[in-house]
Amino acid sequence: MNQDTRQKLLAVSTATLTTVLFKRGFRNCFLQGPRLINPAAPRMVGPAFTLRYIPAREDLDTLDAFLDPAHPQRKGVEECPPGCVFVVDSRGDPKAASAGGILLTRLMARGVAGAVTDGGFRDTPDLAVMPWPTYHAAPSAPTNLIRHHAVDTNLPIGCGEVPVYPGDIMVGDGEGVVCIPAHLADAVAAEGFEQTVVEDFVQERVAAGHSIRGLYPMTDPVNRELLAAWRKERGR
Amino acid sequence: MNQDTRQKLLAVSTATLTTVLFKRGFRNCFLQGPRLINPAAPRMVGPAFTLRYIPAREDLDTLDAFLDPAHPQRKGVEECPPGCVFVVDSRGDPKAASAGGILLTRLMARGVAGAVTDGGFRDTPDLAVMPWPTYHAAPSAPTNLIRHHAVDTNLPIGCGEVPVYPGDIMVGDGEGVVCIPAHLADAVAAEGFEQTVVEDFVQERVAAGHSIRGLYPMTDPVNRELLAAWRKERGR
Amino acid sequence: MNQDTRQKLLAVSTATLTTVLFKRGFRNCFLQGPRLINPAAPRMVGPAFTLRYIPAREDLDTLDAFLDPAHPQRKGVEECPPGCVFVVDSRGDPKAASAGGILLTRLMARGVAGAVTDGGFRDTPDLAVMPWPTYHAAPSAPTNLIRHHAVDTNLPIGCGEVPVYPGDIMVGDGEGVVCIPAHLADAVAAEGFEQTVVEDFVQERVAAGHSIRGLYPMTDPVNRELLAAWRKERGR
Amino acid sequence: MNQDTRQKLLAVSTATLTTVLFKRGFRNCFLQGPRLINPAAPRMVGPAFTLRYIPAREDLDTLDAFLDPAHPQRKGVEECPPGCVFVVDSRGDPKAASAGGILLTRLMARGVAGAVTDGGFRDTPDLAVMPWPTYHAAPSAPTNLIRHHAVDTNLPIGCGEVPVYPGDIMVGDGEGVVCIPAHLADAVAAEGFEQTVVEDFVQERVAAGHSIRGLYPMTDPVNRELLAAWRKERGR
Amino acid sequence: MNQDTRQKLLAVSTATLTTVLFKRGFRNCFLQGPRLINPAAPRMVGPAFTLRYIPAREDLDTLDAFLDPAHPQRKGVEECPPGCVFVVDSRGDPKAASAGGILLTRLMARGVAGAVTDGGFRDTPDLAVMPWPTYHAAPSAPTNLIRHHAVDTNLPIGCGEVPVYPGDIMVGDGEGVVCIPAHLADAVAAEGFEQTVVEDFVQERVAAGHSIRGLYPMTDPVNRELLAAWRKERGR
Amino acid sequence: MNQDTRQKLLAVSTATLTTVLFKRGFRNCFLQGPRLINPAAPRMVGPAFTLRYIPAREDLDTLDAFLDPAHPQRKGVEECPPGCVFVVDSRGDPKAASAGGILLTRLMARGVAGAVTDGGFRDTPDLAVMPWPTYHAAPSAPTNLIRHHAVDTNLPIGCGEVPVYPGDIMVGDGEGVVCIPAHLADAVAAEGFEQTVVEDFVQERVAAGHSIRGLYPMTDPVNRELLAAWRKERGR
Repeated sequence: MNQDTRQKLLAVSTATLTTVLFKRGFRNCFLQGPRLINPAAPRMVGPAFTLRYIPAREDLDTLDAFLDPAHPQRKGVEECPPGCVFVVDSRGDPKAASAGGILLTRLMARGVAGAVTDGGFRDTPDLAVMPWPTYHAAPSAPTNLIRHHAVDTNLPIGCGEVPVYPGDIMVGDGEGVVCIPAHLADAVAAEGFEQTVVEDFVQERVAAGHSIRGLYPMTDPVNRELLAAWRKERGR
Repeated sequence: MNQDTRQKLLAVSTATLTTVLFKRGFRNCFLQGPRLINPAAPRMVGPAFTLRYIPAREDLDTLDAFLDPAHPQRKGVEECPPGCVFVVDSRGDPKAASAGGILLTRLMARGVAGAVTDGGFRDTPDLAVMPWPTYHAAPSAPTNLIRHHAVDTNLPIGCGEVPVYPGDIMVGDGEGVVCIPAHLADAVAAEGFEQTVVEDFVQERVAAGHSIRGLYPMTDPVNRELLAAWRKERGR
Repeated sequence: MNQDTRQKLLAVSTATLTTVLFKRGFRNCFLQGPRLINPAAPRMVGPAFTLRYIPAREDLDTLDAFLDPAHPQRKGVEECPPGCVFVVDSRGDPKAASAGGILLTRLMARGVAGAVTDGGFRDTPDLAVMPWPTYHAAPSAPTNLIRHHAVDTNLPIGCGEVPVYPGDIMVGDGEGVVCIPAHLADAVAAEGFEQTVVEDFVQERVAAGHSIRGLYPMTDPVNRELLAAWRKERGR
Repeated sequence: MNQDTRQKLLAVSTATLTTVLFKRGFRNCFLQGPRLINPAAPRMVGPAFTLRYIPAREDLDTLDAFLDPAHPQRKGVEECPPGCVFVVDSRGDPKAASAGGILLTRLMARGVAGAVTDGGFRDTPDLAVMPWPTYHAAPSAPTNLIRHHAVDTNLPIGCGEVPVYPGDIMVGDGEGVVCIPAHLADAVAAEGFEQTVVEDFVQERVAAGHSIRGLYPMTDPVNRELLAAWRKERGR
Repeated sequence: MNQDTRQKLLAVSTATLTTVLFKRGFRNCFLQGPRLINPAAPRMVGPAFTLRYIPAREDLDTLDAFLDPAHPQRKGVEECPPGCVFVVDSRGDPKAASAGGILLTRLMARGVAGAVTDGGFRDTPDLAVMPWPTYHAAPSAPTNLIRHHAVDTNLPIGCGEVPVYPGDIMVGDGEGVVCIPAHLADAVAAEGFEQTVVEDFVQERVAAGHSIRGLYPMTDPVNRELLAAWRKERGR
Repeated sequence: MNQDTRQKLLAVSTATLTTVLFKRGFRNCFLQGPRLINPAAPRMVGPAFTLRYIPAREDLDTLDAFLDPAHPQRKGVEECPPGCVFVVDSRGDPKAASAGGILLTRLMARGVAGAVTDGGFRDTPDLAVMPWPTYHAAPSAPTNLIRHHAVDTNLPIGCGEVPVYPGDIMVGDGEGVVCIPAHLADAVAAEGFEQTVVEDFVQERVAAGHSIRGLYPMTDPVNRELLAAWRKERGR
């Protein structure tokens, strides 16, 4: 992905990004459910690489399934490109794990930017101290085979009730995860970066005791002048 | 599919089929949610042909999407082979329709054996009098585009929390829908057909006032002899 | 149970009973979830006989479990006294059946007054034409063993989020099921029977075009006089 | 309301109306949850008159509350104008009734067009044979006081997750209920009426065995000519 | 509000307050769902000032809505009196934010005592370090317009399934939020303050290894004497 | 319980235990819902002692109920043997507390190994700093009497949708709680302990940058040799 876009997205909150997308008509881009496991993990930005689960079947989903080198979960973990985000469609079901500490460590070691599931991860006490962003709906000790069957990789999926197409740009912060349609990433990043400057100014004013009237939204021209001066002063 | 198997499955209840499958280790084969819309519709038996939805996206899922002859929902409706069952993965979300009266009529006209979604169908007042089996979770007037994006056909899916692989044998009665893994269909049909004979005998005895002790399950040899006589008499 | 009370309860709606119980401080006596399967079935009145399920365990809950004559589900079906209502605590989970056509037919044949579960029954197409009241939350083909373990009979249970103590009086109509604490049954029946007379009068007046003001509740003395005359005329 | 609009809306399905509204950018106009209690009831069309419930409080919501002639539920029932639809915000909670047989009979007697709640009604066996449309999520015997406090009438509310402003046009058929923003009612009715003609033609063709390709949507000019002829013939 | 009452409530846990209210017949006063975002925030006590959301409508709820100085969310933020608690009815839906960092900072700056929603707030990473109590059900990046329409302020609402009337006293600690009916606040505070003394004594005894028998509840007169001595010693 | 087994289980994660149980055919042994309140609490291992709640009834569940020394909740707290785990069936309902700070402190003081409910505990700010493991689904201030009736102790129950028989071995870590059937505890502990050694080796290799291919699962003999050497070196 565009590195300037990546840098900008690292500095824009998911809250701001949802507003920028809403202006373009997108109402459903914030993943419902997934939360950041380690609050101290770095921000997450990267194109989506997807894994899809369907419900497990008792004769197919035994531990022997992992002996197959083409098992989509294991294959996906080795093939997800560095810089991408590993996004898992677990049908919103956290009763069995989408992945665990070993596979997530492998993804981190391979340079992947983070991992997201709308189900649960296992080994969460380890993930909670891992310097790498993982997002899930709930801790889930059981192996995926108990309820999930990894069926394919890099198809369009739903995750947290949001459509995720391979290559869409996933952004995660301490609030959660946003999916930006690929073709809009540069424009959304640019506008979000700009909007963040304004919001920082507004936040500073409000913290200093000013009313939101005329300031948020900025309908009063005086505030626009103050903003211009503030930006100049800070070189933003 | 094997026509003898089809005939047998038309005479076995979904309740009996789940027990036969449970004996083989399958606990999760009854679709949770879908109900028969027209109680007078014929029984449904046929191999699964699948359609998969992911969440809709505002820029892709406009009414213009249907102008594309390759739109998977419309394409699927024309390509689902006669005798098959049209099975839709709607992520269990009935807030927009998986299909409506016109498309379902087309499927019926094409000789498809029935349609199932874990979401909802629209035009349900019409479906309620259509001589053809449709199963869904709830009536749903809005067009699928509002929440669903048809993404591909005939991949393995989940429907009603059950794994459905293309070609699996779907059986529907007034209780709901069972999915039988393809390679087990003949054996399950044969055993289910046989078990139905026994259950009919047991039901008749119980209705006549006999205790279930020794009869259900049939641990008393006297009952086994009575059953043998009963079968002879009826030629079953 | 008191036969006069039974007769009265056969003539009082569950809606009226919940109001009579509310006057005595009971807010939680209508079972949430269970619905009547056969709308043409007779009214249901009788003391509760309970069966309790806990979640199934794979090594205990095999089909062989039914070979044990002490299996609580089968034992309960043979021991529930005639005139009682068979009430099942299925933890509100209809994903596997609480019982099916054969066992419910046995209960009917034994003179039991009806059956209620907060899960699901199987063989519902048969139950839908059986001249006997069964109440459940959803049709459920799979055998109970798949998710439920019958653990004991006639202990206090929860059913539909309502406490049910053995001997409490269960009343079912086309709306659902109410549980009346045993020691209140006679008083509640008497008051409910009386209140039904008043409501029939009010309903007749309202259907004839009268306002509810002063009539429902009956704060206008004129209405009380009209009611007195109406009762005299009809001998109620 | 405009009587021509009312007549047209009586002939257009809720499914068609949601599509017409979707074309104008409205995705959320079909009430999620409410179902028609009596399938033989007439169609429902009329402006919304609203009642709002908040959770009950033990000291305020006693049976004495109904003695107050200004109690919003009772007042609303007497004040809802003839021709309007009585729409109740019950916060989607059917654990206690939004209203019962007597009040709903009064609304019918007063010429109100129908009643809708996203909770439950009581006395449903009576409602199931009443020649008047009532829509709810589940049968609910307990009086509203147990969980609901009627707080005000004719304010904007949510019902079935849809915004309902007083005066919006509610339309109900056997599938459910749609809310049309007041200022769009005439245009939506006209377009829906027109679209129904086309859909009737398409449905007839499909039932006769024609493919949906080029027909639905009608991209093939031959079909447009056939439609023109069909309309002429039938005077539609 | 009464400042003595405020001081006492700052020292009583929500657990104790629910018990005091239960003694008076109130079962439903603890908000279900809302959790404290910043565990280090000060305790929250103050009268309720309410904001009500209904579902959003696409033509009304655009970003332009905020240009209206009378927009209820923005107006509420400027009008909620210092010392009050800002309580939002979001219909329990956290899929879009009830408010975000800037508005909540403004409330804090204005001397408001805290903010509560049964939906979600946005900018939660900032809220997590803000020295001010905010309670919500889940982090929610999207702007409220996506699903919520701010419709009015200071009407009675439901929040977390609890009735909240303007002026009711809201109390929040690390466990959650209790709503005390306004007219009971002084009495409940006094009794809760007293009960806290007893519970502190009991907790100390239990931590020291004493049995709860005769101590909790305090049925043994010896414990009452010990309590009297303990209080004297500590001047409580 | 076997002290060697206890020692081993203190060193095995719940994730690993679910896999060992899955190999033996157990899919449902991880409690869904309960989370550790104090992440710094010690690991929890011990046999289950159970308490069962049914829904409360207004006339039975008053504060006076606690005056009865045989009240099952209070009795259970005094009788749960040291070393055991106190497991509560709250029907998955956290709207009222299963227990609070005083009773849980008493259990800790008595040497009980920990406490688990599928509902909620109260006094959670205290529990969050208590050096003792408590697991619940959500903070819950209200006293249990508001929704729960303690009915009996040490019967088989469901907790978090898992069957728990008295004497089953409960193991809790930072991820959640597993229930091991009593007769399997020694074998599962031994195998889990062994599997932990292997997983530690794999995790170390993966963290060092090795691929999971041939390593996880360990199908490559080279890795088995490396493991053997690694174990020798570390004396594991």
